[in-house]
Amino acid sequence: MNDNLTADRPTFVTHLECSMTGERYEADRLHGLSRVGRPLLVRYDLDAVGRSLTRDALAARDTDLWRWRELLPVRRTENIVSLGEIETPLVPISKSAGGGNVLVKDEGRLPTGSFKARGLVMAVAMARELGVTRIAMPTNGNAGAALAAYASRVGIETIVFCPEDTPEVNVREIAVQGARVWRVNGLIDDCGAIVGKGAAEGRWFDLSTLKEPYRIEGKKTMGLELAAQLGWELPDAIFYPTGGGTGLIGMWKAFDELERLGWIGAKRPRMYAVQASGCAPIVRAFEAGEEHAERWDDAHTVAAGIRVPRAVGDFLILRAVRESGGKALGVGDPAILKAVADCARADGLLLCPEGGATLAAYREALRTGEVDEAERVVLFNCATGLKYPMPEAPNWLDRHAAIDFDAL
Amino acid sequence: MNDNLTADRPTFVTHLECSMTGERYEADRLHGLSRVGRPLLVRYDLDAVGRSLTRDALAARDTDLWRWRELLPVRRTENIVSLGEIETPLVPISKSAGGGNVLVKDEGRLPTGSFKARGLVMAVAMARELGVTRIAMPTNGNAGAALAAYASRVGIETIVFCPEDTPEVNVREIAVQGARVWRVNGLIDDCGAIVGKGAAEGRWFDLSTLKEPYRIEGKKTMGLELAAQLGWELPDAIFYPTGGGTGLIGMWKAFDELERLGWIGAKRPRMYAVQASGCAPIVRAFEAGEEHAERWDDAHTVAAGIRVPRAVGDFLILRAVRESGGKALGVGDPAILKAVADCARADGLLLCPEGGATLAAYREALRTGEVDEAERVVLFNCATGLKYPMPEAPNWLDRHAAIDFDAL
Ligand SMILES: Cc1ncc(COP(=O)(O)O)c(C=O)c1O
Ligand SMILES: Cc1ncc(COP(=O)(O)O)c(C=O)c1O
Repeated sequence: MNDNLTADRPTFVTHLECSMTGERYEADRLHGLSRVGRPLLVRYDLDAVGRSLTRDALAARDTDLWRWRELLPVRRTENIVSLGEIETPLVPISKSAGGGNVLVKDEGRLPTGSFKARGLVMAVAMARELGVTRIAMPTNGNAGAALAAYASRVGIETIVFCPEDTPEVNVREIAVQGARVWRVNGLIDDCGAIVGKGAAEGRWFDLSTLKEPYRIEGKKTMGLELAAQLGWELPDAIFYPTGGGTGLIGMWKAFDELERLGWIGAKRPRMYAVQASGCAPIVRAFEAGEEHAERWDDAHTVAAGIRVPRAVGDFLILRAVRESGGKALGVGDPAILKAVADCARADGLLLCPEGGATLAAYREALRTGEVDEAERVVLFNCATGLKYPMPEAPNWLDRHAAIDFDAL
Repeated sequence: MNDNLTADRPTFVTHLECSMTGERYEADRLHGLSRVGRPLLVRYDLDAVGRSLTRDALAARDTDLWRWRELLPVRRTENIVSLGEIETPLVPISKSAGGGNVLVKDEGRLPTGSFKARGLVMAVAMARELGVTRIAMPTNGNAGAALAAYASRVGIETIVFCPEDTPEVNVREIAVQGARVWRVNGLIDDCGAIVGKGAAEGRWFDLSTLKEPYRIEGKKTMGLELAAQLGWELPDAIFYPTGGGTGLIGMWKAFDELERLGWIGAKRPRMYAVQASGCAPIVRAFEAGEEHAERWDDAHTVAAGIRVPRAVGDFLILRAVRESGGKALGVGDPAILKAVADCARADGLLLCPEGGATLAAYREALRTGEVDEAERVVLFNCATGLKYPMPEAPNWLDRHAAIDFDAL
């Protein structure tokens, strides 16, 4: 059996740090945002990690998320919670990509069918470690589903708020997995305001992304995994569907930690933050050369997961994209839906709309020469396509009638 | 990158053999059923496998399905097709199991969200190797979805027939993944009759389960994986949701091959074939002491995947169950739905109805003393629960009104 879940291994957390000012915060205590209202980042003694762990030792462990224990914040093994956070596969696509050397990291294979499991498994384990018994969170759907599953498993009470037009499957899975879920007439930041209000009144702990420091550590494992899977040689470009941006920020942090460990070199992928043109605050800020992104009004897109009008980590996203030499790219809903359809039909891989957005952006980037056919590119498919509506298939056959085989 | 998909490795197939008469058939040729109308089983030179491959060498490979190449029928590496057939995790459940030492093998993590990917990835790779260009198949849903994905990926034309009340999600995913799909007013064996008729006319190759010899080789990997994951020590009991029974037969075959390799001992799990009481031909035959199972009339159950009124491999299922000291068990739809709900709410794991059937059967077996708390038990959750209808979650909140936090 997988001993990543049972073996006592050290964590090398030293402290937390404000992502804006660098101010230090103590580890092993409950934190929200920093004093200036910005995300806290977890810091490790990487020299000590390097002395304790080698790439070979890592390679001998089972490949799930918990193999990265030395680079994760959980201290006590008994606080680990798990539903089987496997290493997600890299699936090549060719026909629908229109050329190039494209791998899809298929995050839909994680528990509850999305990459939100990475962030929430860590946040829930840390909530448990820090004695939290009641959690609330705003969600566009997938994060709430992951929270509900892990929190129910460890007996933490959970209340989730989502925009009223959140995909039906998400709302229902949150409820069946034992959380209380409320549809709200607003967007995710409106839901976040309700959660914040309750938290201020001491009713629950606020688990909003980047408002608590550990979801990003879980999402960071996407970057760690990618490095290990590609033989410690990062790809040339990464296309990431960006809402709150936790995954992009997390990967950027992971690459930095890996370089300090000497496990990868200085080369970084160009990071492409992909948004829907109906909700593209990061794209607008990127193009205007701003450091922060203003709220996007009248946000709308089929890709619910990236319908995030305002991100508390906006400056971290923009900084990573710029430092990497990448861009923030917007794609329209028709291009998203066409990418999903093409990839399913030609490559047999059913993407979620957000994954479709990365494929649409890649195809456009190939056309404009922003990426080149010889480059190795990774697209993130952040959830299983099975969660989302598909077109009807109306063919019907009467077995009692004579069958016209030529017409089938 | 995973070199299981690219490294040339030998297969040790020697021939095929009628599962009823033992008559030999040549390898590397297209086959359906044997002359007496029974499934063909693939045979290997296991001595040669043992000389070529060790358990240590295997442990050093990536853990996906293709690492078992020496025990699989595909000869040429270029015929491998893959969408990332990862090793599925074993997830412990406790609260909803009611006691004991229970692991759920979560097959919903495979491509297209079900264990059908195992059988179909192999059948499609072999169809490719043997020059097939047009395939038809009956399905209760998940098998068709897996076929569509793999066949589209390699450019094989595919026509799928399913009962008209097949889960909507399955019918649609088959279509979006590039197959032509027809709803038929009948059950899966009625669909099978249409496929058989077209095959007899030479219109397509019939890929029905156990009517072609390679799906079972793919499904066999469930048994291989389980042995490797549990340190080459099989569990005390396995609960398997049984329709056509390909997986159960496949695992039984795998255990046999592993013992001949000397990788496991003579100990076998008790195999429990779980069926829905609304369609329980194997249970009826088991209890009557019959070697074959008669067709079950008026089949009905919420667990569409095990609504199989007649199985061509009936005698192989019954034989494995009896030799293992297990049983065939029937469970009602209410118990199935309750097991699904309990497991999601208490253990955070959303099973498919067929997976729920195994949990319901386990709980009953624990109650009657058929299994005991000290035993290690594996339940198969054969598909992601996200494919199936969930109850509505109607809570709604007006963010413009005063929020009564105490009532949330
Ligand atoms: C499928 C999917 N893709 C992408 C995102 C955006 O993720 P992030 O918050 O890391 O930007 C979400 C978030 O809800 C999502 O559910
Ligand atoms: C979810 C699920 N479980 C179980 C089965 C039965 O599998 P088998 O044919 O191996 O008995 C099926 C087959 O359709 C299925 O889709």
